[in-house]
Amino acid sequence: MTTVSENGAPSPHRVVIVGGGFGGLNTARSLRRAAVEVTLVDRRNYHLFQPLLYQVATGSLSPANIAAPLRDVFERQRNCMVLMGDVTGFDITGRRVLVDGSGAESVIAYDTLVVAAGARHGYFGHPEWEQVAPGLKTIEDATEIRRRLLTAFELAERTAGLEQRRQQLNFVIVGGGPTGVELAGAIADIAHYIVKHEFRCIEPSDTNVLLVEAGERILATFPPELSAQALTALQHLGVQVRTNTMVTAIAADHVVLESAVQVERLPTQTVIWAAGVEASPLAKKLAEATGAMLDRVGRIAVEADLSIAGHPNIFVIGDMALSTHQDGKPLPGVAPVAIQQGRFVARLIRARLERCELPTFHYRDLGNLATIGRSAAVADFGRIRLSGFVAWVMWLFIHLMNIVSYRNRVLVFLQWAWNYLSHDHSARLITGTPDKREDASGERPS
Amino acid sequence: MTTVSENGAPSPHRVVIVGGGFGGLNTARSLRRAAVEVTLVDRRNYHLFQPLLYQVATGSLSPANIAAPLRDVFERQRNCMVLMGDVTGFDITGRRVLVDGSGAESVIAYDTLVVAAGARHGYFGHPEWEQVAPGLKTIEDATEIRRRLLTAFELAERTAGLEQRRQQLNFVIVGGGPTGVELAGAIADIAHYIVKHEFRCIEPSDTNVLLVEAGERILATFPPELSAQALTALQHLGVQVRTNTMVTAIAADHVVLESAVQVERLPTQTVIWAAGVEASPLAKKLAEATGAMLDRVGRIAVEADLSIAGHPNIFVIGDMALSTHQDGKPLPGVAPVAIQQGRFVARLIRARLERCELPTFHYRDLGNLATIGRSAAVADFGRIRLSGFVAWVMWLFIHLMNIVSYRNRVLVFLQWAWNYLSHDHSARLITGTPDKREDASGERPS
Repeated sequence: MTTVSENGAPSPHRVVIVGGGFGGLNTARSLRRAAVEVTLVDRRNYHLFQPLLYQVATGSLSPANIAAPLRDVFERQRNCMVLMGDVTGFDITGRRVLVDGSGAESVIAYDTLVVAAGARHGYFGHPEWEQVAPGLKTIEDATEIRRRLLTAFELAERTAGLEQRRQQLNFVIVGGGPTGVELAGAIADIAHYIVKHEFRCIEPSDTNVLLVEAGERILATFPPELSAQALTALQHLGVQVRTNTMVTAIAADHVVLESAVQVERLPTQTVIWAAGVEASPLAKKLAEATGAMLDRVGRIAVEADLSIAGHPNIFVIGDMALSTHQDGKPLPGVAPVAIQQGRFVARLIRARLERCELPTFHYRDLGNLATIGRSAAVADFGRIRLSGFVAWVMWLFIHLMNIVSYRNRVLVFLQWAWNYLSHDHSARLITGTPDKREDASGERPS
Repeated sequence: MTTVSENGAPSPHRVVIVGGGFGGLNTARSLRRAAVEVTLVDRRNYHLFQPLLYQVATGSLSPANIAAPLRDVFERQRNCMVLMGDVTGFDITGRRVLVDGSGAESVIAYDTLVVAAGARHGYFGHPEWEQVAPGLKTIEDATEIRRRLLTAFELAERTAGLEQRRQQLNFVIVGGGPTGVELAGAIADIAHYIVKHEFRCIEPSDTNVLLVEAGERILATFPPELSAQALTALQHLGVQVRTNTMVTAIAADHVVLESAVQVERLPTQTVIWAAGVEASPLAKKLAEATGAMLDRVGRIAVEADLSIAGHPNIFVIGDMALSTHQDGKPLPGVAPVAIQQGRFVARLIRARLERCELPTFHYRDLGNLATIGRSAAVADFGRIRLSGFVAWVMWLFIHLMNIVSYRNRVLVFLQWAWNYLSHDHSARLITGTPDKREDASGERPS
């Protein structure tokens, strides 16, 4: 697998990694001692610690607390080159990735390609819902949700009629997975503590946080008793939970909820989407170029070694990959899967360079955690199942230890300690002005 | 000055403050023990510590580090109500302020009105320059400048030709006042340290930071010897300074510089405006309603007690006011002026309620500071003039002490200490996508 360059000298094996999330980052880092040339391409200049994004959306942490500039992460890894740009396509025959970035176009040649471009939220065939019900995948999503949440409280404070005020304080979260549960708990916390102390006209009891789940229980990937404990914890915070309920329409001022027994129209100006994801559109491009199969949410089916069938030098990992557990079930789209896959692919690349064999990818499930409000969580470690404060401390510890940069780890710890002791949400900034966008386009000469 | 409410009982004197910057915040806080009802209206939900905005623009601090939610600031001040909304006009006869905010319209009645809506950057009759040369007054401005600066480095890293690469690394800052000098120094720091360590293709020597000043020296409000020392410090950092030079055109890919001896066209994609400010458009509305005079940059001329002539119960303070020093010179648009004016107006309101007399406003000049890069500054305290490291430590200390919230003070101190020791700029996130705005408007059905 040695490449020979034009002047005849052997040049190092070129690994191109698309995406600097958990999968791509861990592939690149695990190749730090390998005799390869790594190029990591990402549309963003930072790695994002997505599990804490909901804390940005609710004003507890700042974006920079959960993001680490990729150049900073790889500053000392001399065999890794970071490039910011949009991957626009794959030239499989020529073994090249096409990259576009603000006008500068380029191609990057690879010997091995690792694609880990992640997922976006999917709206089950209702793309028009995105405008009224943003999802939570990027920093821009988080600051937009933060703006909507905080603006709702500000508007309610200025609204005279009790009925209208309560409508402004109806918050609907669609999807009862970990993100939905975490958001619902955090919003209930704001509603209770901050409304009570900092607002003069609205009351905590005016707010109504509604978590809607189509399935029969929240946190469906957890054991049923932990789902039940999470439900109790949410209800204790004042969150209304509706299971077996579908959202069938979302508009700027209401949602329609449908269950087996009733159809309800609920006035609300703040809907957050935490229900479904679909793979990055790059998966489709890669599938077209390689003949790989896509599943219903656009993920690429991969072999047991995470490569694409017929393309042993192209790997797909993380949320973009449909990879199956040893028991045949598809692996969930969570950080530990992407991390372990990244490390596995790096090991496999090294093994091939040394002409060794390696067993296929085996996912080791280290457990499942979700937090509910400011001091409860549920944790599932197989035989050991925890809930309440102990699980919450474990959640804090595990998340803190996994933040990539040391500086952020220290700062996030200090912020958490401060927030916990003072009930503070000081990153509560309403920034960005979507109205401005309309102004700007309205002013454009036609 | 006691108001009688409809049921005949005396109701407290109502003070409405427009703007939660240094002027408005200090007026409201200084009224905390007065028998008045304060309403503070701001378009934003936070007070912004503008003197450190350039550190957000250059990725040293996060927006939340230099912003304090207004509700948090006034949580315990029970006589102060915070409202978020856009002031759209003044009904002087009815003694009411008109407020609009995302659909909810309201009026707020006052007995005394304090207007402190600040200033925006002004382009000397070239509003079209704003698109290509953003100024630095808001958090959105700062994150947009950060995006442009960091994107320029990323693009240059991907550009093959040396000539084009250097064009991408031409940074032009228009205006040699404190903001321009601080930005130029901070950008030169990034260029030198970060480019050297984190980029693989571009060299620090490829970057070119140019500070353009129309007058004959930078930091014109400082004594000439401190201007000279600042110039030396900037040149030491590699910043090119052009004095006596006007910018006569700004486009997306170049600027035109004109001096007495030459006209030069410089290719650049990154221009930052730090040259001029003009008062908030609210000044014009208030002048029309009251008959007050406006100066060239839209500021309202105020009396010696900071009220508008003929309207003793309407005060204008801060960057929106044209107020003169005891020697007849107009006061500069800096934080200490606004702070002292806010405190004075609060004292005057209290004195009037107690039917006392108060001498007119007297500005106490506490000194002038500007920082240059990571360990130099100039400080002018009248007879005492300092430059270099001592002035820089003083600058740090004074700015830290003036940040409104205790939590931010601690976090900013820790970040500064970390940044200083590690040369880190970890808040270096490229966020927001202006291209997306164009997409969005392009997709709109016409």
